Amino acid sequence: MTGASQETDRSRLVMKFGGTSMADLERIRRAARIVAAEAAKGKKVAVVVSAMAGKTNELVAWTDGAGAPAAGLYPKGSMTDDEYDVVVASGEQVTSGLLALTLRNMGLKARSWMGWQIPIITDDAHGRARIEDVPGEVLGASMDAGEIAIIPGFQGVSRSGRITTLGRGGSDTSAVAVAAALNAPCDIYTDVDGVYTTDPRIENRARRLARVSYEEMLEMASLGAKVLQTRSVELAMHKRVPVRVLSSFIEPDENGKLPEDAGTLICDEDEIVEKRIVSGVTMSRDEARITLLGLSDRTDAPADVFTRLAEASVNVDMIVQSQARSAGTVNLTFTTGRRDAARAAELMSSLKSEIGFEEIRVDDDVAKVSVIGVGMRSHAGVAQMMFRALADKGIKFQAISTSEIKISVLIESAYAELAVRALHAAYGLDTL
Amino acid sequence: MTGASQETDRSRLVMKFGGTSMADLERIRRAARIVAAEAAKGKKVAVVVSAMAGKTNELVAWTDGAGAPAAGLYPKGSMTDDEYDVVVASGEQVTSGLLALTLRNMGLKARSWMGWQIPIITDDAHGRARIEDVPGEVLGASMDAGEIAIIPGFQGVSRSGRITTLGRGGSDTSAVAVAAALNAPCDIYTDVDGVYTTDPRIENRARRLARVSYEEMLEMASLGAKVLQTRSVELAMHKRVPVRVLSSFIEPDENGKLPEDAGTLICDEDEIVEKRIVSGVTMSRDEARITLLGLSDRTDAPADVFTRLAEASVNVDMIVQSQARSAGTVNLTFTTGRRDAARAAELMSSLKSEIGFEEIRVDDDVAKVSVIGVGMRSHAGVAQMMFRALADKGIKFQAISTSEIKISVLIESAYAELAVRALHAAYGLDTL
Repeated sequence: MTGASQETDRSRLVMKFGGTSMADLERIRRAARIVAAEAAKGKKVAVVVSAMAGKTNELVAWTDGAGAPAAGLYPKGSMTDDEYDVVVASGEQVTSGLLALTLRNMGLKARSWMGWQIPIITDDAHGRARIEDVPGEVLGASMDAGEIAIIPGFQGVSRSGRITTLGRGGSDTSAVAVAAALNAPCDIYTDVDGVYTTDPRIENRARRLARVSYEEMLEMASLGAKVLQTRSVELAMHKRVPVRVLSSFIEPDENGKLPEDAGTLICDEDEIVEKRIVSGVTMSRDEARITLLGLSDRTDAPADVFTRLAEASVNVDMIVQSQARSAGTVNLTFTTGRRDAARAAELMSSLKSEIGFEEIRVDDDVAKVSVIGVGMRSHAGVAQMMFRALADKGIKFQAISTSEIKISVLIESAYAELAVRALHAAYGLDTL
Repeated sequence: MTGASQETDRSRLVMKFGGTSMADLERIRRAARIVAAEAAKGKKVAVVVSAMAGKTNELVAWTDGAGAPAAGLYPKGSMTDDEYDVVVASGEQVTSGLLALTLRNMGLKARSWMGWQIPIITDDAHGRARIEDVPGEVLGASMDAGEIAIIPGFQGVSRSGRITTLGRGGSDTSAVAVAAALNAPCDIYTDVDGVYTTDPRIENRARRLARVSYEEMLEMASLGAKVLQTRSVELAMHKRVPVRVLSSFIEPDENGKLPEDAGTLICDEDEIVEKRIVSGVTMSRDEARITLLGLSDRTDAPADVFTRLAEASVNVDMIVQSQARSAGTVNLTFTTGRRDAARAAELMSSLKSEIGFEEIRVDDDVAKVSVIGVGMRSHAGVAQMMFRALADKGIKFQAISTSEIKISVLIESAYAELAVRALHAAYGLDTL
């Protein structure tokens, strides 16, 4: 596959502003100045907006009070979240209209396009719908005619004509889907100024990455970096949409110009000339470790465990099997998200005799630390460097999982920040 | 034309709840109990809802802050209110979804239908659109299948597919239009328990009318009674929709039954067996009197005045021409709404030499008191009774206007309540 940059229509631009950038009229005006600066460059612009910060929470609370089960708790494919979507989709409708009015007040041409007007067609999994199609022709024609298109994020319309929403954080995905439909790059304005080598609150030597590959960003988003919603990165990778993450606090200069090279570009691996072995270090405490002691060593016992967990929609991450003290048994350790841990443990306890194990232990005093980099594919010794760096600080690891471009270790929670700093230094990220 | 009652489908019912009835989740639950009581009778129900009380004001204030001119100040037919409509239509979307969820939580089947889903087709006069068509087939089929239809009032969709709103108070009109489309009667739940012979805050002997004709209600709405939006009454009269006004504070009894004969039925004159000469007395202080002294007595001078006022969209109500002291001149008095008075006076002053008059006087220390009744058509002496009743209290009148079913007099503002009470007694309404 060739890089996307040759195909992307750089006369067009999709910009996305989150809830804090839409929080009140003053913040909306600030976003409008950034949009105006891009339009002044001659860009044909579409803007995807979130609801005012806090507004979606208020709307969700009302639906709870009106008797709606919490979003996402309906059975898969259920249609009963449809009215929840009617209520919560309204927040982005409001900010779309307000941004259009603000831009017009600045002398620009702008109009809003609701999800059902474009239309942004989704499946009918209300409350967590997936985008299936975004026809870009009408939208593109309006933009080509010089009108800035304002699009509410988070919302779509099902094929049966009902309002749908994409789930929390879905506006990033809306923006990437619109960019894909328009064959345009996508700038995501947020409250951080880019993607960092690690969380700057943990390691103040963390550096902003000028570029990061889709694959790396996807791992980072999955492993605890909260810059972008995972699904939006998946979609950008699939559609080869160049995505830039940058701060909504930038201001055009006195000539209305925006700073060049702001933020982080998320792009195809081929477009990153200088490949690093490791691009980032992430840490997550949303982990719990469950150990089944004295599990029967019949070969299908682990399969039974993981089948039952999958049936209960518990996602399992790391798995370690080790020899137990009792003959004919093993110890099976696995990790889950912290929210799933109690449910997983209850389920296992209820199946104690059926599956056959002696004791269950749950420990959520753990953290997962990961190093991510596409350079790992062509470099040996990456894991070795990780284990040495941790050993040098006296940090033991309890489990390991790897993919082609990342290595994760489970460690005692108290050592998490220390581990992040040690790895950040060991892979040369301090001096990037 | 025959009465509508023979044609109306009484197995169906449209119910409308205003903003105070949707103000919070507790009020929404109260409305839902009333809806459930009608459904329990076997009625196929559609419910039209307003936004939460205060919400539309908040949304309008945001559009003002974002630079939108105040609604309705755009030139007629302007498209520039379109984004105002996107913002303010969201309030009813929220309450529609919340009422649907609340009814489902009570075990009933319900779904919301946005203006663009039905569709409620309007012209494109954004901010004050007029309903052009409401296809009732799909909606009716859904109701016939036992699903309560929840419809946001105030909103529609233009033929070009943009969101429109009907102007403040438009939800009454939405409800009547939906009732007409479904050939159903319409119950309007509000914060008063019906239409009264006069304002009970002025005359505590005011009585609730069991029935009132469309024509009378239309005059009452135009002349200061704020129970229903004038346009909704016009539409009900035109489509012969039986409309009942009743209090949203009624509660179903322990058997889930609603009280019978609550509220006031607005219906065809033919359906009112016992016709009264006068059904109601109204009073309005939203009046201003403008007098042009020493106006040229050339025959087209008054025509010039009223042509210029019409061009400036000033509505003129009463007109009196009288002999002036200067030879060859007359005095011309007319009334306008109080908001238009300053503009009308400025306009006239600027045309002083062109039109030819000596002096202009503006007085807004006036009130208009009216008696309304279809019985006037067949009774002589109604006006005489009015003038005598006012004279008995020493109240002079400054101007008079009449229609087939009403007489209005302009009097000094201080006498307004006294006049209302005197007329209420004179026409026997105290003991109705």
